[in-house]
Parts: sequence; structure tokens; C-alpha cells
Amino acid sequence: MLVSLKIGLLQLNSTIGDFTANRRKLQEGYHQAVAQGAEFILAPELFLCGYPPRDLLLRSDFIDTNLAALAETAKIIGTIPLCVGYVDRNPERPGRALKNSAAVLQNGEIIWRMHKTLLPTYDVFDEDRYFEPAKKIEPFLFNGRKLGITICEDIWNDEDFWPERRYRQDPVRELILQGAEIILNISASPWCDGKESTRLAMLQRVARDEKIPLAQVNAIGANDELIFDGHSVALDAGGEIIARGKGFAEEILVADLSPEVSTHKSVVSSGFPSRESQIFSALSLGIHDYVRKCGFKSVILGLSGGIDSALVAVLAADALGAEKVMGVAMPARYSSAGSLQDAEALAKNIGIRYEVLPIEPPFLAVEKQLAKIFAGSKPNEAEENVQSRLRGVTLMALSNKFGALVLTTGNKSEMAVGYCTLYGDMDGALAPIADVLKTDVYRLARWVNRGRTIIPENSIAKPPSAELRPDQTDQDSLPPYEILDAILEAYVVKNMGQDEIIRNGFPAAIVNDVVNKINFSEYKRRQAAPALKISPRAFGMGRRIPIAQRFRSQQ
Amino acid sequence: MLVSLKIGLLQLNSTIGDFTANRRKLQEGYHQAVAQGAEFILAPELFLCGYPPRDLLLRSDFIDTNLAALAETAKIIGTIPLCVGYVDRNPERPGRALKNSAAVLQNGEIIWRMHKTLLPTYDVFDEDRYFEPAKKIEPFLFNGRKLGITICEDIWNDEDFWPERRYRQDPVRELILQGAEIILNISASPWCDGKESTRLAMLQRVARDEKIPLAQVNAIGANDELIFDGHSVALDAGGEIIARGKGFAEEILVADLSPEVSTHKSVVSSGFPSRESQIFSALSLGIHDYVRKCGFKSVILGLSGGIDSALVAVLAADALGAEKVMGVAMPARYSSAGSLQDAEALAKNIGIRYEVLPIEPPFLAVEKQLAKIFAGSKPNEAEENVQSRLRGVTLMALSNKFGALVLTTGNKSEMAVGYCTLYGDMDGALAPIADVLKTDVYRLARWVNRGRTIIPENSIAKPPSAELRPDQTDQDSLPPYEILDAILEAYVVKNMGQDEIIRNGFPAAIVNDVVNKINFSEYKRRQAAPALKISPRAFGMGRRIPIAQRFRSQQ
Repeated sequence: MLVSLKIGLLQLNSTIGDFTANRRKLQEGYHQAVAQGAEFILAPELFLCGYPPRDLLLRSDFIDTNLAALAETAKIIGTIPLCVGYVDRNPERPGRALKNSAAVLQNGEIIWRMHKTLLPTYDVFDEDRYFEPAKKIEPFLFNGRKLGITICEDIWNDEDFWPERRYRQDPVRELILQGAEIILNISASPWCDGKESTRLAMLQRVARDEKIPLAQVNAIGANDELIFDGHSVALDAGGEIIARGKGFAEEILVADLSPEVSTHKSVVSSGFPSRESQIFSALSLGIHDYVRKCGFKSVILGLSGGIDSALVAVLAADALGAEKVMGVAMPARYSSAGSLQDAEALAKNIGIRYEVLPIEPPFLAVEKQLAKIFAGSKPNEAEENVQSRLRGVTLMALSNKFGALVLTTGNKSEMAVGYCTLYGDMDGALAPIADVLKTDVYRLARWVNRGRTIIPENSIAKPPSAELRPDQTDQDSLPPYEILDAILEAYVVKNMGQDEIIRNGFPAAIVNDVVNKINFSEYKRRQAAPALKISPRAFGMGRRIPIAQRFRSQQ
Repeated sequence: MLVSLKIGLLQLNSTIGDFTANRRKLQEGYHQAVAQGAEFILAPELFLCGYPPRDLLLRSDFIDTNLAALAETAKIIGTIPLCVGYVDRNPERPGRALKNSAAVLQNGEIIWRMHKTLLPTYDVFDEDRYFEPAKKIEPFLFNGRKLGITICEDIWNDEDFWPERRYRQDPVRELILQGAEIILNISASPWCDGKESTRLAMLQRVARDEKIPLAQVNAIGANDELIFDGHSVALDAGGEIIARGKGFAEEILVADLSPEVSTHKSVVSSGFPSRESQIFSALSLGIHDYVRKCGFKSVILGLSGGIDSALVAVLAADALGAEKVMGVAMPARYSSAGSLQDAEALAKNIGIRYEVLPIEPPFLAVEKQLAKIFAGSKPNEAEENVQSRLRGVTLMALSNKFGALVLTTGNKSEMAVGYCTLYGDMDGALAPIADVLKTDVYRLARWVNRGRTIIPENSIAKPPSAELRPDQTDQDSLPPYEILDAILEAYVVKNMGQDEIIRNGFPAAIVNDVVNKINFSEYKRRQAAPALKISPRAFGMGRRIPIAQRFRSQQ
């Protein structure tokens, strides 16, 4: 083959289970790509049903509706083929009931089907729970050319990127051995910090090593915890970028996939915006899609005057528009005047509605209610948590009254060591920054303030405090956040044991204390709101730890 | 072989990650079984580390500690072999990093290792996430006899019990084809309603069909949501029961496994206690183990005077002793005098500490706090939920002050339709009856009261009400519980779609309303306390539903 092929990439945002809307979006994207001259068009993995559908896959009516949506979509497809992800049934027994599949649609019909071979079952992925892997892999013959069509993980089998490889098969290799001239990949590959670069480098290596042009369409949009970044790409046989999709936004892309290495230097840079910019875009998309896909229009959050709630408010205003965000300050006896001023200044800077609802009167009433049964006891976290929980009562009452979704404002460092109150400041339907370490919260706040002041300088500069007792600061009982976050990274993300972390140079007393705090607060995290995932290992569905357990490295 | 073999079954309760305690328990059990004449001894699947260890398996130090515990255990084993479950490393790549394994220990050494072939990855199970299946299966040669050793799922491959079989291999068949004369199975097979009978019938069928004697040791004890029931068993080659372990209690069992069908009629009945008795034992064990394994000594719960909290109080007193349980009544303006009397009578009947802490004063304070911002709005669930949340504030304050774990008292029917308040009556570390349908709550209450009155008759007889507004009852907005529970069973447990449920004879309007309520309240359940699992499909880790999704059967 010496003729090039114009590939259309439908980098679109689907909603899980909303087959009607997903189908409509697919049709519009298809017609647009055809109008732009595409000769073969790709839509993301499981686009018709949305990814990840999880246990909706166990519902027979869900599968039926998805198959009907595929058949309906076929009817509007003309001579230019569309390849789209859907769920197929696997009739063979023994075997799992389903397959993660792609269909090629042309001239009103489904003309070809293929199935995913490599099924991720780690971190947030559970594909072995549902799907039977493909039995055979073969290229798709299109106008005399052999196209090697793969689904997401099928292409992630390079030893350098995957040192602990789980899979025996290499679908890309097998397709090339069978004569595939182009590799196509439809993905729903969720983003985490740095993933856009890793993914691009991995794809470039495949193209370069195999000397083959390659195009990948990736989903965009957020579904619960997961944020899909798009960044679809077309590469020539030397791994140079021919075309690239936006990050965190929809786009219809048409790229001319030439069989030869481009003679000109790549016109598309392989650089990405700053790390802070990417994290901000991801979180903003995550908030926007969760609120919209859950059917809400507005959000509400507590503003403490601190940096965490300020950052969440800025993100929410970016995601939904300032008019859809209400910030509520709920001072009590230990709140400083400065905190209230900082909260108000932030609200003013971003233009959101701001309310002050002091919790002191209900706090006094609860103290009185408990006075007799608490008589003779020393003040402890019981009294501190009552304040946090009354703030939760206040926000949830506003939510129930006005139909606004509550955002919770805790960061990953706090969630890790349990420096948060269950049924208090943990109240909320979504936790936008619960996978963002405190040191990154500072970086993001500085980035938000680039060349202007949005988050009050005082919120950034003052020592972090929950203000639940006199003169309290986070560092009374925690190491400096630089050290804490480094230990969290080692323990939570890299799964290192205490011994290993101590060998890496951290003080044993601090490491043991931090690890004990992480283990002890597992029960809190089990009841936490879904957190937007931006790290390779977030708390939640991708980290499954028993609560009633007693493992310590040294026994 | 015509000689019989005395098999020792160590039906013991291990704690996840508590290698020291698990190892000590194993040693004591081993010596006891040897003293009782056992010639070959079995301990449960993954006994050394506890089951399910989940993502602790990703920690290298966890695997190391487990291997060290196995080596230490071997040192105390004499001529009578012990076969015990542990986690092995899989050095081969590509491949998953671990294996779910069993070792035979004898004369101070590890003399044989085998690995699990069939890895459950459905419902609550995630074994494909961690383990590589066995590459080969072969009998263990012991004193000239071929023993077919299997791990849990390996033996669950009968088509009649597993019509939707996932697995191609049948390890039991393969072992018998290689000459195995006895089938041994080490399990951590969690209980659900009816599982003890299904498991026994399945094992009896294997023994009878294959004409082979069989012994299974099963774990007992609870770990978070899962309750392991024991019920270890030894069967002759005709499937008759030679010996059987207790349900929901530890036991060392020694059984003479004869190669021949017993000529006498089975001396051990295959019957089990009543369904209510089994569920009660399971839940009591679940509470006991969660509290003990989390390091708590006492519990606290709200007593509303209703049947749900009464049942949970009875279960807690059974599990921990009445002196470890505190019941708290928290009346407000809509609480009836009768409810308070019923709560007090229940507390008196079971002998637990009883406190009354009215929430009316804090409720008034919150109403005042919100008066301005709520001005002009109609009362709705906002005001109702404030009451429920102030009860949560009260219980959590007592928990934080006195170190008692809070039990939450919602049932499965309520949790399904969202008839519960997030951060209110859903507060608690464990939800003992959140997998018990309301109709079963009634059955259990009647069973508790057999021949006496423990739960006040009024709590059972009166129409269920949350008492959050005047004259409220559950049936204002829900169908009768018999109908609701039948729909829940169809939708949640059997994964039927609305259309199918309606075809089964339920009114369409009711089915659609119930299903909408279930779907809408997914966000509440995501933040719910772990629920003791007693049904084939409980909410929680075994039912993974996206929150932001829009699937409806009819689009």
C-alpha cells in the first residue's frame, strides 16, 4: 500500500447508559468527520454504553439496549465506515457472558466485529469480571488494505512501559505479522498526572519500532471518579505526530495517515501545557461532568477561608460558571476573623454567591444536650467534630432545600491520615481534590493566581488549621506537608512498606506514625465521597483495603 | 487403596494481616488435631494472611511476612502433615505477580506446593486482580496414596450448580483422571442465605458422581462485609456425611475418610437449623468479629422504638454481651410517646444501658440558624433530614467521647430505595442489617421473640415510620413491603430489568417508581457503612454501579 488513508477520530464525551444521547452525538460526529473528508472513522471504546459501565453490564436489558443502539447507528452509516466500541454477548460456555467489542458499520449494516484481547484487571479496572478475551485476532480488510484494529489495553504491551507485564499475547505484533499496514486503536484510557505524556511516548514507540502508522481515538469526559482526557493522536511510521486532539475537550479530528515516514519535521509539537494547567483542566471537567451527568445544575460548598475550599470554589466556578456556585462560611468560636475575611474575598474575586451561617448557636445547643452525659470528661475530638458535623448539617440542609449538590473540599493528604471528620467536612456528593496532595494544592493555588490575585494571599500563606480548638494547626500532629506527601506517595501510590520508606531516608518515628494514621482511617475513606482521580493510585475503587485488618510490617 | 485416612479439619477464624495470631491459632489447632488422631490435616484457604486480603496483596512486605509465617509454621510440624493456604509469588513474566496457594508442611519443612486453578472474579471476588492460575494440576503422593488437593472455587465446577460456567478447566476431574483417591478442598467460602445447603449438596454430588470420598475445611469468622460459616464436612464415596463442622463457630474436626461407601446410613443428618437461626448467627458473628478485629470493645446505637433498631440491639447484645451495648433514644417533636416506651422496654428486656438525649433543642437552634435563608420556602426533606442528622451528631459525639463503635440500623429495603438519611441515620461503622430485607426483619424479630417477648410487640406491630413529620409512615411513599421486597429481589439480586419484572406480574407504575428510587439513591449507598452480607447480591463491593449514569430500560 502506498496510498494514504484519511482517518476520522471522534473524540467525544458519552454518558454511561444514555444510549439515546450517545447515539445522537455519534451520528453528528460521524457526519462532521465525513464532511471533513475522512475515509475511515473511529469512535472510542464502549462509546455506545459509556465507560466504565461496571455492573450495569450484568443487566440483560442494558446489553439489549446497547445492541439495539448499535443496530440503529448502523442504519445511518453510508459508504464511509465507522468503527465504534460496544458490548457484545459471548454465546460460548464455559466462558464469561460478554465481550468488549468494536464493530465496523458501513452502508447501513454491521460488516465486521472484533473483540478486546487484553482485559485490564488492576487499579480501577475490573474487565475480567465481565468480559471473555478475543479468541482470534485478525486485520480488517478495507479496500484492499489491512487495518489492524485494537481496543485500548491491546496496544499497551510494550515491555519498557510495562515491566510487570501480565499478558502473554501481543495483539499489535500478531496483527502486523498478519500484514496489518496501519494500527488503529479505540480507547477509553483514563487520565492521571503525566498519563498524556506516557501514552504518547508509548504510542510513538510502537509506531517507530514497528515502522507503522498509527491512530488512536480516546474518550473524553468524566464518569464518577475517572477523567478521560482525549488527546487522540495520529502518528506516521516514524512516530512523528501528524495530528493531535485537544486535552479535556471534545474534538472531531481528521488526519491523513501516510504509509511513509513524513519527510518534513513534525508540524505538531509533542509538548503539553504545564502540569498545573492539566490537573486544573482535569478537575474542572470532572466537576462539570459529575454535576451535569447526575442531573444537577448548581453546587454549594463550605468556605473556611483556607486554601482547600478556595481552590475547590475556583474549580467549581470554572466548571459550571460562577452563578452556579454558592459558598457558605460557617464560623464558630475558634474561627478567626481573618478566615471569614479570606472566605469573603475569595467569593468576591470569583463572583460566586456568598452566605454566612454561624454554627455557634447549634453548637451551644449540642453542648447543652450532651452536658450531663459528658460531665467529668476532658474535651477531646468529640467536641471538635461536633463543629465540623454541624457545618455538614448546615450544608446538607441547603442542598436538600435548594437542590444544589454539595462539594467536599478535603485534599489527599488529609484523607490519607484521617485529618477530616466523617459526616462533617467529608459531607458531599463529590470530592474534587481528594486525590490532590496538599503540596499540589499549593502549586495549583499559585498557578490560579498567576499574574493576579484570585485566591487571597493570606489563604495560601497562613499555616493550615481546622480551627476546631484554640491555636490549632495541622502541624501540631502532622509532619510538614513536604515530608508527609513524600511518605504518602511511597506508601499509597508505590505500595512500599514502612521498612523500605525508612531505608529511603525518612525518620522511622514519623513514617510509623503516618502509616498507622493511614491504616487507622481506612473506615473513614470507605464512606468518603467519590474523589476525582488524578494520581496513579487514588483512594477509592482503585485501592481496596480491608478495614478490619491488623497488618504491620514489623510483627 | 483400601485403608482409610483420618483427616483433621481446622475450622478456625483468622484475622487479615495478623500473622502472629493466625500462626499461633494454627499451631494450637494442629496439635489438637494430632492429639485426636488425625493423619493428615487441613487448614482453610489463605489462612495465614486471612481472607480476603484484597490490595494488601500489592504490598511486598505483606507477601514477605506471609512467606515468613509459612516457614515458621513448618518448623513446628512433625510427621503428621499440615496443608494450609498462603500467598505465593509467581516469578514468571508475563503473568500476574502472585498465586493463591496451599503448602503441605511435614517434619519441619515445606514438602509440596500447589496453586489454585479457578479464580473467582464476580460478585465480591476479585481474584484475577492478583493471582495467576495454576499451570498444572497433580495429586499429592502421601504414603503411597494420591490425594487430590484443591482450593475453594476449584471444586465448584459442576454444571448443575453453575449453569453460566466461566471456566474451561475442571480440576477435580483432572485430579481423578490422574488417579486421585480422595478429594480434599481448603476453602474460604463466604456464607449467604442458603449457601450452607447449596455447598453441601454440591459437594455431595461431586462425591457421589465421582464415587470418591471428599473432605472440605471452610473458614469461619467475619471480615468486614463477609461472613464465613464453617460447616466443614467429610463425605464418603456415596456422598453420605461422615462428619460435619459447626456453623458460625470454630471447631477442630477429625473424620475417618473411608474409601468405601459407608454401609450404615449416615449418622450425621444433612439438615440445618432454621433460616432465621442461621441469619441471626451470621449477623451476630459479623458484629462480633468486626468490633473485635477493629480493636473496639463496645458499641452504641440509636433506639427509635422501631423494629430495625430493636433487632440490631438484640444482635449486638448477643454478639458482645449486653454490658457492651448502649442504646440511645433521641426524641424530637414528631416522636410518639409510644416509641420512647418501646425503646426503653427493649433496652430493659435485653439489659443494655439506655440513655435519652432529646434533639429538640439543637433542632430549634438549626431552624433558627437557617430561618432567614429558608424564608418563604415550604418545609421539605431538608427539615426532616436535619433531625436525622442531629441524631447522627449525637451518636458520633458519644462515640468520639467514649470510644464505642456506632452501629447503624437501616435495613436493605430502606437502603435500596434511599429511605434513609446520608450523614444521619446512615452514620455508623457497620451496618449489621443493611442486607436484610424488611420482610426478613419481621421474620427475625418473630424468631427472636419465640416463646417470650424481647422485642416489644408494639415495635413489631405498628406501621413503620421515620417520625420525621406528623403522621408519617413508610407506606405514604412506598408500596407494601411484601411487594417492595419482591421487586428488590428481582432487580437487585437477579438483575432483572423493569420490563421483565412487570411481565412477572408487578404493576408497572410501582416497578418504575421503585427502580427509579433505587437508581437515584446509588450516591447514598456509595457512602454507606459496610453491610454484613447475607444475600447472594448485597449492596457494596459485590454490586458496582456507576453514580453518574442514565440507563433506563425504556429509552
